[in-house]
Amino acid sequence: MSFPALQNDVFLRALMRQPVPYTPLWLMRQAGRYLPEYNQTRAQAGSFLGLAQNPEYACEVTLQPLRRFDLDAAILFSDILTIPHAMGLGLDFVAGEGPQFAHPVRTEQDVAKLQVPDMGKLQYVFDAVTLIRKELGGKVPLIGFAGSPFTVGCYMIEGRGSDDYRLIKTMLYSRPDLLHRILEVNAQATIQYLNAQIAAGAQAVMIFDSWGGVLADGAFQEFSLAYTRKVVEGLNRQSHGAAVPVIVFTKGGAAWLEDIADTGCDAVGLDWTANLSQARRRVADKVALQGNLDPMVLFGGEAAIRQQTRKVIDDFGPVGNGGHVFNLGHGISRFTPPEAVAILADEVHSYSRSKH
Amino acid sequence: MSFPALQNDVFLRALMRQPVPYTPLWLMRQAGRYLPEYNQTRAQAGSFLGLAQNPEYACEVTLQPLRRFDLDAAILFSDILTIPHAMGLGLDFVAGEGPQFAHPVRTEQDVAKLQVPDMGKLQYVFDAVTLIRKELGGKVPLIGFAGSPFTVGCYMIEGRGSDDYRLIKTMLYSRPDLLHRILEVNAQATIQYLNAQIAAGAQAVMIFDSWGGVLADGAFQEFSLAYTRKVVEGLNRQSHGAAVPVIVFTKGGAAWLEDIADTGCDAVGLDWTANLSQARRRVADKVALQGNLDPMVLFGGEAAIRQQTRKVIDDFGPVGNGGHVFNLGHGISRFTPPEAVAILADEVHSYSRSKH
Repeated sequence: MSFPALQNDVFLRALMRQPVPYTPLWLMRQAGRYLPEYNQTRAQAGSFLGLAQNPEYACEVTLQPLRRFDLDAAILFSDILTIPHAMGLGLDFVAGEGPQFAHPVRTEQDVAKLQVPDMGKLQYVFDAVTLIRKELGGKVPLIGFAGSPFTVGCYMIEGRGSDDYRLIKTMLYSRPDLLHRILEVNAQATIQYLNAQIAAGAQAVMIFDSWGGVLADGAFQEFSLAYTRKVVEGLNRQSHGAAVPVIVFTKGGAAWLEDIADTGCDAVGLDWTANLSQARRRVADKVALQGNLDPMVLFGGEAAIRQQTRKVIDDFGPVGNGGHVFNLGHGISRFTPPEAVAILADEVHSYSRSKH
Repeated sequence: MSFPALQNDVFLRALMRQPVPYTPLWLMRQAGRYLPEYNQTRAQAGSFLGLAQNPEYACEVTLQPLRRFDLDAAILFSDILTIPHAMGLGLDFVAGEGPQFAHPVRTEQDVAKLQVPDMGKLQYVFDAVTLIRKELGGKVPLIGFAGSPFTVGCYMIEGRGSDDYRLIKTMLYSRPDLLHRILEVNAQATIQYLNAQIAAGAQAVMIFDSWGGVLADGAFQEFSLAYTRKVVEGLNRQSHGAAVPVIVFTKGGAAWLEDIADTGCDAVGLDWTANLSQARRRVADKVALQGNLDPMVLFGGEAAIRQQTRKVIDDFGPVGNGGHVFNLGHGISRFTPPEAVAILADEVHSYSRSKH
């Protein structure tokens, strides 16, 4: 496989803490419901799964935000629940309620049956990666991703979103052996899945530990971080002649920043509760940091967007031997006015030049 | 007003970092739906508001957990939304959806109309405090409480629970002047409200900043903590010849622990993501700490409950010049088996004796 030469490597260089002329920017969920063209493609596809499982549609929506905004990376359009879906748990997206599994994993029998799925069932993801990489034409790098073993496990056990994580935590405290087995299967599946994305053309990968932050101190390290680390250690960090940096993002994980930075990843994503100046001191520039504007700032109007964007860049400070990738602290809201993103991109790129 | 002499002051002494024979225990939402007798009283009252607004019912449910379990404090049964209800926002509890306001505060006109309510409208709360204190007969101290100005403001502006706080954050970033005015009114109302609870017999007070943790670093200090501090500074810390300690709890606030400890409070409540050993080092024993077992541990069975309880006590370490009040990191779940609380109380009281 050969791909067009990369024209903008600012994102990849920042992740590896190499000199760059400005702070690169991309947004979690940048291909999404706040864009009218996304909603149009989704309507054509008929459903979220129809969109994610069709490489042409996935490619189209991945490219949409790049046509509108000056962003420094693309991210594969997909979902963190593709792996358990391939395991046979029966993923469905119920309107207004989010993802649900027809066959959640709750009993000893359920756990015993669980296996790393045949990656052939996820070929549509790898096909999308290759197609997007080709269609990008080297404009910006393509990010692949997966959920962390714990976060994916939350959905597998709860069967849907939860506000108290009672089922997975009950298993964690009463039958930790069962949960460890689920997480081990998830970790092995995630290693194969991300390595296949890398082989298909992903130029960086990100592990989303969206729910690790709901765990108690101690439990986080044992049931979330240990498996994220296993995934990081299992990844092919070189592909098609280039380094493939790895980003780990734990929402609500600022308390464990040093531990997360120690997984072997190249960069740590931070939500908006973290102070970037303190965070940078804590990781001593051993990893790059990604983040961390509150997505709700994009509702505040132009003056607030520019001011809060400058605050994030100022908090990080002169880049020196560090690395900073600008992002939101969480996915962009579906209610965001698209013009707010254009203002954000303008401010990040212009204001940050003085810090490099 | 005179009250029966206090027989168990372990909770109050721990809050003030004075020597105690064991670690005292109470649970956030200890009077609640996990107790069949609570559900029976609530059914008699007809509704949540009927329960909270009737001093006899409020007294009854406050005392219920103390009849079952060996707890070291009682907490007034009430709600953090009594103040905006008294402001005329029209509180209602919709089955399965939680609290809602008929008249949320969103426009410049809404904000201009907002005023500190006549405390006479909250007399039912103060009557409940006095009745409970008498009925307790000095068995354990009674805690009064209020929401933080920001947390109460979230509900006033959003009109109900929210998962993105879009409306209040839009106001915060686009019209900070309006939000500051709301928070100022809330702070003044909360000072009057808590001082009236103290005058009525509350022996300690707690400020629940349940949603401060959703704010960005910087915004938290300006829009939540500054007003919590104002409340703490306005409180009468002596009443009926005794000191009245103040606890501040910000869920998800571990990143700002030093700032919170600096508000002038006696104790800081912590959720389960914090490590008590690190937290104690950060506050250098200048305040007591309250917490921080994950409420979901109570679903893990006896062995896990005892083990995780010991972990919390061990993390705090030998008490020395510090102070530790055992609690959950958040309210007890309505699905908790009551017998789990009896196991917890037994383990806290027996295991902690070696640390004092």
